[in-house]
Amino acid sequence: LETKFPSIGTTIFTVMSALAAEKGAVNLGQGFPDFDCDPKLVEAVAEAMRKGLNQYPPMTGVPVLREAVANKVEALYGRKYDPAAEITITAGATQAIITAILSIVRAGDEVIVLEPCYDSYVPNIELAGGKVVRVPLTPRTFRPDFARIAAALTPRTRAIVVNTPHNPSATVWTREEMLQLQDLLAPTGVFVISDEVYEHMVFDGQLHQSVARFPGLADRAFIVSSFGKTYHVTGWKIGYVAAPAALTAEFRKVHQFNVFTVNTPMQHGLATYMADPQPYLQLPAFYQRKRDLFREGLARTRMALLPCEGTYFQCVDISGMSRMKEAEFCKWLTTEIGVAAIPQSALTVDGDDQGIVRFCFAKKDETLRTALERLAKL
Amino acid sequence: LETKFPSIGTTIFTVMSALAAEKGAVNLGQGFPDFDCDPKLVEAVAEAMRKGLNQYPPMTGVPVLREAVANKVEALYGRKYDPAAEITITAGATQAIITAILSIVRAGDEVIVLEPCYDSYVPNIELAGGKVVRVPLTPRTFRPDFARIAAALTPRTRAIVVNTPHNPSATVWTREEMLQLQDLLAPTGVFVISDEVYEHMVFDGQLHQSVARFPGLADRAFIVSSFGKTYHVTGWKIGYVAAPAALTAEFRKVHQFNVFTVNTPMQHGLATYMADPQPYLQLPAFYQRKRDLFREGLARTRMALLPCEGTYFQCVDISGMSRMKEAEFCKWLTTEIGVAAIPQSALTVDGDDQGIVRFCFAKKDETLRTALERLAKL
Ligand SMILES: CSCCC(=O)C(=O)O
Ligand SMILES: CSCCC(=O)C(=O)O
Repeated sequence: LETKFPSIGTTIFTVMSALAAEKGAVNLGQGFPDFDCDPKLVEAVAEAMRKGLNQYPPMTGVPVLREAVANKVEALYGRKYDPAAEITITAGATQAIITAILSIVRAGDEVIVLEPCYDSYVPNIELAGGKVVRVPLTPRTFRPDFARIAAALTPRTRAIVVNTPHNPSATVWTREEMLQLQDLLAPTGVFVISDEVYEHMVFDGQLHQSVARFPGLADRAFIVSSFGKTYHVTGWKIGYVAAPAALTAEFRKVHQFNVFTVNTPMQHGLATYMADPQPYLQLPAFYQRKRDLFREGLARTRMALLPCEGTYFQCVDISGMSRMKEAEFCKWLTTEIGVAAIPQSALTVDGDDQGIVRFCFAKKDETLRTALERLAKL
Repeated sequence: LETKFPSIGTTIFTVMSALAAEKGAVNLGQGFPDFDCDPKLVEAVAEAMRKGLNQYPPMTGVPVLREAVANKVEALYGRKYDPAAEITITAGATQAIITAILSIVRAGDEVIVLEPCYDSYVPNIELAGGKVVRVPLTPRTFRPDFARIAAALTPRTRAIVVNTPHNPSATVWTREEMLQLQDLLAPTGVFVISDEVYEHMVFDGQLHQSVARFPGLADRAFIVSSFGKTYHVTGWKIGYVAAPAALTAEFRKVHQFNVFTVNTPMQHGLATYMADPQPYLQLPAFYQRKRDLFREGLARTRMALLPCEGTYFQCVDISGMSRMKEAEFCKWLTTEIGVAAIPQSALTVDGDDQGIVRFCFAKKDETLRTALERLAKL
């Protein structure tokens, strides 16, 4: 069989999770919590199943959940989305992103990605027949470089993928950066695919600058988020996309022939649970404490800490302490030290190696302590 | 916004379900049960959630479920699939089919579909950049016409989509027909995408002729099935694909960047529940009784019954009793008579109208009786 995708391997998250399991390492690689979600959420889903809410929901998602999402977005970011025409429930954020890309990117269209980035964007664009235009974030500080983004814009540019809070670097775009993006795109017809799955994990009093706050961006954007990240249920694979009606119409054309629709009882359970905003309002404090605990321990190693403004990831610079490549270091760390991490170079097309690796701190305190004990050897 | 998909509208199933809801009609359109699943299955999922099985599963699906699938396929059809390398859990059968198509169909490749057919196949092929080659099933009897299939094969043919038990016609391919397909494809490199979501709904002692029974087909096939159809939980959106290791490897390249993976607690719940084969072994008798009840009532109307060998659909010929087009008839039936149905013409590209409409009988006996009372007017 001649492969259609010679360059696609297995996602780094699967590779590192498998290695961590094999070696019995503490898995700080793939981004998921090792603690439980709120039992109330579990019971809300169980209740929905018992009520017999187990058949196809509407293709776009159950109305109560679409309304809950629209209310949340309006309360937090001030933009009112119509739950009927502008919100669609998806089988996770990854499925939302590929569907957005497939719905607008035509053969030969250029799509800008800012590297490093989540590893589905590039294959998604290629699958749509698009041309990936890679623009690096500023080296080691991982801010958007607007001069380079401007230089990458052409008449063929169809879309740009942005992601704040940013995975893997843990930077959070400022209001000024968002305004710069808005100004830059104003004269163009470029669409925005905004991956905001870490929207509720922003620290030190900073605000999440959702695209929804910026009309000049929101009018051209698919905003993607994830219930899995927010409610500690990454395995439920449920997210949403908010987009103006015309974009949503295009999105749904593809969505209905991809997954058609999304798990009914989980949707109802989440809608019930979202009546209380406290769980996501408390998330910054919850994760900031874990971040601080983890950073305190890391600071005692020879790995150099990078800033962590948001997400549940902490990056470190290993270039001062090791001559290994990132990937080699991560393999060694998993195998010999017993802690799995993700090499940032795996999140770029050309494997650009800045000597930076990513840890996930969405873990029980005791897990973080065990990891830190092991890392103390470094 | 200039649409990328000018020809794609809203799927007929959504259209008819929405109309049925609006008019308060008995919905015999979209294919889903109106009765509950086994409470044991609900509790198995609730138990998995309570145990904390709520984070990302392996990308390919949880091992226990892949093993349960492999065991079932071997027990029923005699082919042993390796659960690690040949079975992948999907977010429903629709997602399995699009992923299979995206993983092998390249720009310009021809893919044969046998019309009428489920309405995602054609847009899926177009999304992959493939060329849809439509071959009609025999008019009114809906058998594969091997002379026409043979004539449609070219050096550019990449795949053929087959579906038995067949939606919408309710025919079931015979062993002889499967052997004819196998012989026809033997000298070619054509792949088979086999939609077998109604595998456990075959009546009157006939056997489901899974592609898995035919090595010459199975060696080149993606076999797709659905837990939702089998266990009365269409809203759970969970299915699987079985394919030789080389095809599975290609499938997973796309799958990991589409949905990445599938709901963890549902997978565990299903794996537990599948330890008992009775639920699917009893399914033919369960649905055959409903079919008979429904056919008995329909026989008293002026609609002419077509055979129903499998699936949970019953087709009728309206051409003898009405001069309306199928679509018009279905709209009228929903609005004026209070029973929703699906026009077969919606499941062909050119709207070929043979005067045949489809009812779904996966309904409580009382629902079927209410529908039959209303239909008695015809
Ligand atoms: C979908 S697997 C990866 C989870 C994640 O978002 C990450 O680790 O970056
Ligand atoms: C995915 S919606 C349609 C359900 C179905 O298989 C049908 O009605 O044909």
